[in-house]
Amino acid sequence: MKIALVQIDTVIGDIKNNKQKIIEGYQQGANDGVELVIFPELSLVGYPPQDLVEKEEFRQAAINASKEIASITGKTGLIFGTITERDDLIGTDIHNSALLCFEGKVQFTQHKTLIPNYDVFDEMRYFDSAKDVYVFEFHGEKLGISICEDIWNDADYWYKRRYSVDPVKKLIDKGATVLINISASPYHYGHRKDRQEMLSVLTRRDKVPLAYVCNVGGQTDLVFDGASMCFDNFGNLVLLGKAYSEDYFVFDTKAKYTPILKSERSFEEEILDALIYGLKEYCSKLGFKKVLVGLSGGIDSALVTYIAVKALGKENVHVALMPSEFSSEGSIIDSRKLINNLGISSEEISIQPVVDKTIEMLDGSFNGKHPDVTEENIQARIRGIYLMALSNKHNYLLLTTGNKSEMAVGYCTLYGDMSGGLAVIADVYKTEVYRIAKYINNDIEIIPNEIITKAPSAELRYGQKDQDTLPEYELLDKILRMYLEENKEINEISEIIGDNELVKRILRMVDVNEFKRKQAAPALRVSKKAFGYGRRYPIVQGWRK
Amino acid sequence: MKIALVQIDTVIGDIKNNKQKIIEGYQQGANDGVELVIFPELSLVGYPPQDLVEKEEFRQAAINASKEIASITGKTGLIFGTITERDDLIGTDIHNSALLCFEGKVQFTQHKTLIPNYDVFDEMRYFDSAKDVYVFEFHGEKLGISICEDIWNDADYWYKRRYSVDPVKKLIDKGATVLINISASPYHYGHRKDRQEMLSVLTRRDKVPLAYVCNVGGQTDLVFDGASMCFDNFGNLVLLGKAYSEDYFVFDTKAKYTPILKSERSFEEEILDALIYGLKEYCSKLGFKKVLVGLSGGIDSALVTYIAVKALGKENVHVALMPSEFSSEGSIIDSRKLINNLGISSEEISIQPVVDKTIEMLDGSFNGKHPDVTEENIQARIRGIYLMALSNKHNYLLLTTGNKSEMAVGYCTLYGDMSGGLAVIADVYKTEVYRIAKYINNDIEIIPNEIITKAPSAELRYGQKDQDTLPEYELLDKILRMYLEENKEINEISEIIGDNELVKRILRMVDVNEFKRKQAAPALRVSKKAFGYGRRYPIVQGWRK
Repeated sequence: MKIALVQIDTVIGDIKNNKQKIIEGYQQGANDGVELVIFPELSLVGYPPQDLVEKEEFRQAAINASKEIASITGKTGLIFGTITERDDLIGTDIHNSALLCFEGKVQFTQHKTLIPNYDVFDEMRYFDSAKDVYVFEFHGEKLGISICEDIWNDADYWYKRRYSVDPVKKLIDKGATVLINISASPYHYGHRKDRQEMLSVLTRRDKVPLAYVCNVGGQTDLVFDGASMCFDNFGNLVLLGKAYSEDYFVFDTKAKYTPILKSERSFEEEILDALIYGLKEYCSKLGFKKVLVGLSGGIDSALVTYIAVKALGKENVHVALMPSEFSSEGSIIDSRKLINNLGISSEEISIQPVVDKTIEMLDGSFNGKHPDVTEENIQARIRGIYLMALSNKHNYLLLTTGNKSEMAVGYCTLYGDMSGGLAVIADVYKTEVYRIAKYINNDIEIIPNEIITKAPSAELRYGQKDQDTLPEYELLDKILRMYLEENKEINEISEIIGDNELVKRILRMVDVNEFKRKQAAPALRVSKKAFGYGRRYPIVQGWRK
Repeated sequence: MKIALVQIDTVIGDIKNNKQKIIEGYQQGANDGVELVIFPELSLVGYPPQDLVEKEEFRQAAINASKEIASITGKTGLIFGTITERDDLIGTDIHNSALLCFEGKVQFTQHKTLIPNYDVFDEMRYFDSAKDVYVFEFHGEKLGISICEDIWNDADYWYKRRYSVDPVKKLIDKGATVLINISASPYHYGHRKDRQEMLSVLTRRDKVPLAYVCNVGGQTDLVFDGASMCFDNFGNLVLLGKAYSEDYFVFDTKAKYTPILKSERSFEEEILDALIYGLKEYCSKLGFKKVLVGLSGGIDSALVTYIAVKALGKENVHVALMPSEFSSEGSIIDSRKLINNLGISSEEISIQPVVDKTIEMLDGSFNGKHPDVTEENIQARIRGIYLMALSNKHNYLLLTTGNKSEMAVGYCTLYGDMSGGLAVIADVYKTEVYRIAKYINNDIEIIPNEIITKAPSAELRYGQKDQDTLPEYELLDKILRMYLEENKEINEISEIIGDNELVKRILRMVDVNEFKRKQAAPALRVSKKAFGYGRRYPIVQGWRK
């Protein structure tokens, strides 16, 4: 069977345009003489549609659009993902479904069985589970259709499983000769390799070819990396869709292919690609042409500026230098060098006169108390005001530049350097920021070396260094990674690190700064556990207090 | 059977202190000679514990504390809520359970069957469902124990149900003679009445008495109002716990009680109580003694200040007046009157010099563009800087004063008036703010009448009025309520309002301002659909665009 995989980028809720993309992709497949054209999970409504599916008019619009799509089909089959309604007055009454259409009608519907409800996934909030799965005979094959998570519960692959049933196993038992999985699978580091390994084990075991079609695109904080895959019945990956781009390609389940060998890509490459794409998508979908970055002379803002240039072109990136009396000469020089290397526009505006005036106005209210973090925050917040003013006046999207390490311990100022519409590297640890910066400089020095080698500082008071307050970043990130990504707790981490007091202090910093993160800009997710939607902790809590 | 209901306020994750409260409540019941002492849902770990339950050390701490609690029990029974672990390598492996202990041991465990996963509830993320329910014979009665949501699926009461099974009906069928439900039920307007009606229908039908024990307390944005209830086997409410306070009382299932008649309370009373309590709890659990409010002369900040005084006492409320060149004389006079009426401390600091200096510094960057919302936002943000500086310097919790109507349409400045640790009235519509203010003034004028009667204005430019940009609040709130609370969409709302263009404009304002609300402070929830955790919409979307 010849199957066209159409890897599209959709806008959540934009049923009209998504429908158009499905129709166009279908027509291309029909023209190419394939038997079946397949589209990703929920491609008609976009993924994740969140609470939009709770609206009756939205559901109705999706159902009407589904009928329209079905009505244009001929002999060639079409499978796409959308929501469907039941009405038995129990449950959510909505399914996440794959619709198989041909000859003008929806001929077969398979609902999703395994409904993910962990990390960034909230699907049980919206979708009832399929009661059973069925194969469908089409052009001499028995199609076993599943949706995303359905294929992620293989008992041979997982030591611990999330669900008791394996719908793909059931499809095989019912005689499926071709497996089709339509997916929406957000990127995190290493996830493409996971997908490939898991699907390879499954197809090798079941001896059935698989067409796995993914969506692509950025959806606020989530980055969908594409890379749809086809496997032969020996578990070989034989076709691979483009990453970070829409794609269309045809899989012939009967043909012989040369297996695709794993092409290892470096951590730095992978993360950079995801961040550049995520930023590009966020801007284009919100209609921002230009972005703004506050350049401090430090490595975080340098990296974000580099990413912005790669995402949007140098002509669409503007930076502001906002020195104060505590800014080192080096920071200004290094920033200018970076601006020069990247060929972007910039301006310099001192915050000092406004900082001085603010402190003068507040002097009486401070009751003679000594300078403390208050005065530091004022500087960061005046910078925030400058940046937001430029953003408002010139319609720049302001990018915020905090990394994951500082977001974790709260080494950042709410309404100050945390201001902005998108946090580009807030899911990248500080040590990773350094690694990526060095990788970028591999051939030519783009990020001035001084920025990479000097001791990191917020420059909010004389002689300040990050390491006055924090342990060395190598150590800090090691602790944070265990705490955040591996879900380890104080006893286990302390045993590994050998410094209970330090670990306790760091974990406490993470916990008490939950209030800051609750007001943070959305952050592009590139790790398996990012701050934001996928990590949910109460602000008020007393664990380990 | 004599049952002591212990309505406690717990801190999420503070297993040590929560355990202590359970032990003390149990001992009081034992001393009073009751047969059974019951505590709310998840009382040992606090509700909602969110991702804390995903940590192995946390689960272990809860399990150890459960054993300790069980070990101190004697003949008197004890039921409390906590998490329990399975280990069959499928699912989350955690249950939300009720443990019945006596004679030193956990004698019986009932897991929760119905796992709520809508609005603010995310329990399917954490908890596996019970496989079945069982009655337990104790002191001559058959106890039918259920947990919160378990009792909310009565086929007689609901037209449309969330779940296909009814665990309470099953308990009745298995011969339960006394029903016990342990709950954690967050307040929203009218919810106490809902609980009472539903439980009354259920106990009248089943002819079995019910002890329904709730928690009480504020958990960030959620307010748990207490008001535990006991019903006789005729469906009469016979005992009612205190609202917004811990409580302990004994229910004798064999005794005759005089039914409690419904005491209707006004909307204004209900909402005020919830907000005052929610604020008080947030401050006490985070360790803030004093709060700060920026007083604009408008009704929102006046109401928030009043609520703060009621919650914390006038000596713990400080306000700042921050006039600009656009502030009317009336606003200052009205604010001073309010300060006087409430007997609170205050200070006045003009923002004008800092605004002027900021605009002077940015003048070159504005490229001669005309004044627009940029200059308005600068004012709001300078106020934010002042307030945060006072908060930082004096350890005040800054309260933000936006109402639900303006949060909905984005009539507020990110990092400006949106700054603060808690949004006190962000779930109260503007028209409701007026109603509540009038109610407060019922006996004596506390909120100066001028504040209530004058046309609302942000005073960010000369002669500005809210209604330059927005329709009359009566109309706006009508549209918003249909859109937000009733989940209606454009066609249905337009038909009711009769102005498609207006409805379209308002709904679009709500949608495009999702990015602001994503960075908003947590808001005390008093409606059935508040912004924040319980309402999840993508920032990037194209529905109805």
